[in-house]
Amino acid sequence: MTLDPLVAALDYGSVLIFALTGALVASRAQLDPVGFIFMAAMTAVGGGTLRDLILGQPQVFWVARPSLVVVAAGAAMVVFWTAHLFESRYRLLLWLDVFALSVAVPAGVGVALEGGFSPIIVVIMGVVTGTFGGLMRDVVGNEVPLVLKQGEIYLTAAFGGALTAVTLAGLEVGQAWALMACGLVTFILRAGGLARGWRLPVYRPRPPRNR
Amino acid sequence: MTLDPLVAALDYGSVLIFALTGALVASRAQLDPVGFIFMAAMTAVGGGTLRDLILGQPQVFWVARPSLVVVAAGAAMVVFWTAHLFESRYRLLLWLDVFALSVAVPAGVGVALEGGFSPIIVVIMGVVTGTFGGLMRDVVGNEVPLVLKQGEIYLTAAFGGALTAVTLAGLEVGQAWALMACGLVTFILRAGGLARGWRLPVYRPRPPRNR
Amino acid sequence: MTLDPLVAALDYGSVLIFALTGALVASRAQLDPVGFIFMAAMTAVGGGTLRDLILGQPQVFWVARPSLVVVAAGAAMVVFWTAHLFESRYRLLLWLDVFALSVAVPAGVGVALEGGFSPIIVVIMGVVTGTFGGLMRDVVGNEVPLVLKQGEIYLTAAFGGALTAVTLAGLEVGQAWALMACGLVTFILRAGGLARGWRLPVYRPRPPRNR
Repeated sequence: MTLDPLVAALDYGSVLIFALTGALVASRAQLDPVGFIFMAAMTAVGGGTLRDLILGQPQVFWVARPSLVVVAAGAAMVVFWTAHLFESRYRLLLWLDVFALSVAVPAGVGVALEGGFSPIIVVIMGVVTGTFGGLMRDVVGNEVPLVLKQGEIYLTAAFGGALTAVTLAGLEVGQAWALMACGLVTFILRAGGLARGWRLPVYRPRPPRNR
Repeated sequence: MTLDPLVAALDYGSVLIFALTGALVASRAQLDPVGFIFMAAMTAVGGGTLRDLILGQPQVFWVARPSLVVVAAGAAMVVFWTAHLFESRYRLLLWLDVFALSVAVPAGVGVALEGGFSPIIVVIMGVVTGTFGGLMRDVVGNEVPLVLKQGEIYLTAAFGGALTAVTLAGLEVGQAWALMACGLVTFILRAGGLARGWRLPVYRPRPPRNR
Repeated sequence: MTLDPLVAALDYGSVLIFALTGALVASRAQLDPVGFIFMAAMTAVGGGTLRDLILGQPQVFWVARPSLVVVAAGAAMVVFWTAHLFESRYRLLLWLDVFALSVAVPAGVGVALEGGFSPIIVVIMGVVTGTFGGLMRDVVGNEVPLVLKQGEIYLTAAFGGALTAVTLAGLEVGQAWALMACGLVTFILRAGGLARGWRLPVYRPRPPRNR
């Protein structure tokens, strides 16, 4: 399976950063080193694995390139030895997750674009690749899922980034530019949500008919 | 991938109704509109996706027909704007879920029958297609899983419906009749459980040997 | 799909024992008989299904051999009728899980070795096959996941066993010996952890920089 170098680089970056977040959740659950590696690897490859299975790729990306798993394991060990240096591990987790999302969404979009899938599928693959690793991390690690945390712009950021990429790709601006714009839009939306409190209106039951 | 029109219609129906239930869970978790779409889409296609992956279908059904995802997103928006009109959203959720199950089980059975799989596999695919979307909805949305709620006839209804279909298909009564009977039996069992309290005996530890 | 008889036997053994543990969790949740079968089957085939999907096997193992599911259902019924005979169902669950892990890890390793995958992938498949069924069982059944229980040697046992198999296979000692050693090492590590309290150091935040 030959892959565009940019898409391959996005896969590596997303694995590395998501692995750091998985290991941070392992640190909050006070797991042992092998538990760190497990959480890091699951978070790192979860979204991309689901993407590859759904798209029917000839091989799951990390089976084709096992060194990705070594990267995740290395990241887990770095966190095991250094996490105590940070004032707030949760704050660090939140911000690393922003970067991971901003790299994983274009990674998902890129693979789906190369496969020639329809725009709807490309957008979904961006969102799936960006979010499922973190969702598994939070469900298994017993954290409140960031993806669905009330009032956070998270899915919206992934969705906005993926939509940007599809629009630009449709305008034939070149895949590299489309993917970079995708990552940038995802980052701006998510970081703005975290740092500035940007959000969409949430569902709030209006007064019921009678009482 | 050409598919029997009846099976395709069942897929559409099950996606639409399960999407409504997913959006209702999103409303109970007070998510934003994109959260509604995410929960609706995951619930709507979760069971069928697992079915297609396990059976090794050439393409996952909604990758072949992306309009299904648009249906789910539309359903999510309808719920976002109208959910407050209902007295009890949980009651509505329960009953929509009954209809979704009664459509999704024959959808799963139909695909497996067309693939020529053995009766055991056909039954399992009916149960998997009917239940996994709802299970993911409840685990991610932090609801008590309906599938396993103590004393509810849920799996039993799916199982009974799928068994009916396989039996009738074995008697060569025609696939359309088998699938309709499947949906009907599932509905009667599940609705009877909900409205009349029908249930199977649950496990209760008998008095232990000594104390 | 012809499979080495030893690997096939490991699949059967792992399905049987994991099914017993799934049914025990169902008994703790006081489900009905169909709920027992669901939990037993999901636990029994969950890890191997994920393995086969990730490796891109031509067919998922229990779709190729549906009798495996019948075995799991039978095990569920045995537990439904006999679980009350045991003093502590949780203790029984823990120990059955030890045996299941010690059979499932070599089952995963065996399939990956036969497929000619790289050592890293073989090790991961051993761990995935050994742990994901139990992880799904615990997440769905609302138990604290054994896999990640703080201070338990669990992943480490699976990892140690899989590493042993890959090392021996690399030394060309014959696949049967490699798989048996794999099961034995997994068992000794996990049983030692349970009976003797063996464990790895867990992450504990050292004193922060200032306060």
